Amino acid sequence: SLIAVLAGDGIGPEVTQAARQVLESLDLDLRFEEAPVGGAAYRAAGHPLPAETLALAARADAILFGAVGDPAFDTLERSLRPEQAILGLRKELALFANLRPARLFAGLEDASALKPEIARRIDLVIVRELNGDVYFGEKSRGTTEAGLREGRDLMRYDEAEVARIARVGFETARTRRSRLCSVDKANVLETSQLWRDVVVEVARDYPDVALSHMYVDNAAMQLVRDPGQFDVIVTGNLFGDILSDQASMCAGSIGMLPSSALDDAGKGLYEPIHGSAPDIAGQGKANPCAAILSAAMMLRHTLDRPEAADRIEAAVAAAIAAGARTADLGGTLSTQGMTDAVLAAL
Amino acid sequence: SLIAVLAGDGIGPEVTQAARQVLESLDLDLRFEEAPVGGAAYRAAGHPLPAETLALAARADAILFGAVGDPAFDTLERSLRPEQAILGLRKELALFANLRPARLFAGLEDASALKPEIARRIDLVIVRELNGDVYFGEKSRGTTEAGLREGRDLMRYDEAEVARIARVGFETARTRRSRLCSVDKANVLETSQLWRDVVVEVARDYPDVALSHMYVDNAAMQLVRDPGQFDVIVTGNLFGDILSDQASMCAGSIGMLPSSALDDAGKGLYEPIHGSAPDIAGQGKANPCAAILSAAMMLRHTLDRPEAADRIEAAVAAAIAAGARTADLGGTLSTQGMTDAVLAAL
Ligand SMILES: CC(C)[C@H](C(=O)O)[C@@H](O)C(=O)O
Ligand SMILES: CC(C)[C@H](C(=O)O)[C@@H](O)C(=O)O
Repeated sequence: SLIAVLAGDGIGPEVTQAARQVLESLDLDLRFEEAPVGGAAYRAAGHPLPAETLALAARADAILFGAVGDPAFDTLERSLRPEQAILGLRKELALFANLRPARLFAGLEDASALKPEIARRIDLVIVRELNGDVYFGEKSRGTTEAGLREGRDLMRYDEAEVARIARVGFETARTRRSRLCSVDKANVLETSQLWRDVVVEVARDYPDVALSHMYVDNAAMQLVRDPGQFDVIVTGNLFGDILSDQASMCAGSIGMLPSSALDDAGKGLYEPIHGSAPDIAGQGKANPCAAILSAAMMLRHTLDRPEAADRIEAAVAAAIAAGARTADLGGTLSTQGMTDAVLAAL
Repeated sequence: SLIAVLAGDGIGPEVTQAARQVLESLDLDLRFEEAPVGGAAYRAAGHPLPAETLALAARADAILFGAVGDPAFDTLERSLRPEQAILGLRKELALFANLRPARLFAGLEDASALKPEIARRIDLVIVRELNGDVYFGEKSRGTTEAGLREGRDLMRYDEAEVARIARVGFETARTRRSRLCSVDKANVLETSQLWRDVVVEVARDYPDVALSHMYVDNAAMQLVRDPGQFDVIVTGNLFGDILSDQASMCAGSIGMLPSSALDDAGKGLYEPIHGSAPDIAGQGKANPCAAILSAAMMLRHTLDRPEAADRIEAAVAAAIAAGARTADLGGTLSTQGMTDAVLAAL
C-alpha cells in the first residue's frame, strides 16, 4: 500500500518520523512517499496545499499527517495560511468523518487535571463532521449600511451531510457500548434542529443503539463533570472541534491522542490531534505517541491490519505503563527515546 | 428601586424566592414586582415573553431572573419555546454584556471534578457577548437545489458590537488582575478575524491591560488543563455559552455561580447560570446559592450597594465553609435550609 507522508510544520516532522519508524519495523509491505504541506509548503512552493501534494494524497491508500501551523504566516491572507492545507485535504478528498477516541492510559493519572477516579472512567469516541458547518459555508467581510466593518460566516448543513455522519456515529457505537449522544444547540440554531431531526430518522435503522441528545453547553459541562457517562458522541464540525480538544485534556495529555478523517470508502487521513507546537519544534522533545497511535488507527481503519494495530497500541500502553515519559507527561525522554521505548515493547 | 422578579420554570421559582428572602432581610428599600416568563408564561398567556412582562422588565431598575425551560414545550415552534424569553429579554433590552465569574468556594474541593490544587486556582470572569453572533443572524430552513432539507444560521458581528463588548472585557480586567484573553476561531472564521482586529484596536486605549488571543478549541482545553492561567476571558455569544458552562463545572457545582447581563447604562438582568432543572423542580432541594449570589451581583453592578453585595457574598462563603450543603454539593440541606444558613451568616 502507498502511504502519503505529509509531515508539515513545527513538531509535525519529528512525530511523523517516529510513527514511520514504528510502521517500518513491522514489515507490512508499505511504501512511503513524502510531500510538503502547510507553512513548509508555502515556503517551498508558495501554497500551503500544492497541487502535487493534493495529487499524492488522492493517489495514496492512506495519509499520515503531522501538523500544520506556523506563526510566521499569521499575517498572510487566510487562503494562504498553513491551516488551509488540512481544511483543503478534508474537503477535496471528502474526508468527512473524524474519529477522535479519548481514554486515559493507565499510569497517566498524574497528567490529567481531573481527579484520578473520574479520569480513569474516560473511554469515549468523538465522531466529528468535517466537510460542512460554519467551516465551509459562505464567508465574507463587508460593511453594514451604517458603514461599519462586518464579518459573516454561514453555518449550514443539509440532510445528506447529517445523515452520513450520523451513520458513522451509530456504526461506531455498535462496535463499542452501543450508546450514542448527539450534541447540538437545537434550542437556538435551525441547523441544529435539522441535525436533530435527521439523527432521529437515521436512528430507526439502529434500534440496538441507545440514542440521546445534549446541548453543546451542557456537553462541555458534562465532559468535565462525568466524562465516563459517554460512549460515542456525534456532532458537527465546530462543536466537535471544541469538545474533542476538551475531552483530550480531560484524558491527560493531548500528546497521547490520535485521530482519523475518513471518506465513504474507508480511505483516511491520520493525524495526532495536537497541533504544530512551534514553541518546542526542532528540539526533539515532542511526544510521538499521538502520531504512533494515528499510524495504528490507519492500520485498523484503512489498511485492514487490525492485528498490527493492536500490537502498536499495546506497545504504547506498555511503554507508558513501564514509566516512559516525554516532557508533556512530566518525564525527560526525548522524542526518539520515547519511540525507542515503544519499539522495544513491540 | 424597582426589581422585576421573573422566576420562570422548574427550580426558577424556588431559588428566586430564596434570593428575595436574602434581599428583603437587608432593609434596602427595594420594591419587588413579579411577572410570568418562559413555559410558565406560555401556559398563562400563550407566549414565553408576554408584552406585560417585557414592559415590567423595561421599567424596572433591575431584573432578578430564575430560569426558563420546560420539556413539555419542546415540540412547539421555536419562537414559542420557553428559552425564547431569555433571548428576547437580552435582545429587546440591549443587555449585551454577560459577566460570568467562576471561582471555587473554599470547602467545595470535593464538588469539582478537577484535582483540588488545580480547582483552587480558578478565579476568572467570562465576559460573553449576548446580542449578536449566530444566535441572532438570519435563520432559515429550506431545500437545496437537489431537493434536500437544509438548515442555515448566519454568524455575524460588526465592529461596533465587538468594540463595546471588548471595552467591557478591558474594564473588567482593570478591576482585577489586568489580564484579558480574547477567544475566537480566527483561523477559520471571518467573524473571528474581524473580532480579533477590533479587539486589537480597542486595546490601544488599555495599555495597562495585558491582552492575549486564543483559539476556542485551545481555550476549552486550557480551561481544563490550567484554569488558573485566566483572569478575564472575552468572547462571542456562542463560544461564551460553551466555555462558561465548562468553566462553571471546573469550579465545582453549577449551582454556585451567578451571572449578570448588562446594558450600556448599567441596568442589568441577574440570573443563576444553571437552568430550570426540571428533574428536581418542586422538590425544595435546589441549591439557592447561585440565585442569592446573582442578587449580590445586582446590588454591586446596578444598584450601587457594594457593601450589601459584599455582605451577601461573605455570608454564602461562610455558610459553605461551615459545611452547609445542598444535594448537588453532596449534602442534605433543602433549599430553605441552605437559605437559612446564609441568612444566619449575614
Ligand atoms: C487547524 C484547524 C483549522 C483545525 C480545525 O479547526 O479543524 C484543528 O483545530 C483541528 O481540530 O484539526
Ligand atoms: C437557554 C439558552 C438559550 C441560553 C443560551 O444559550 O444563551 C443558556 O444556555 C444560557 O447560557 O443562558
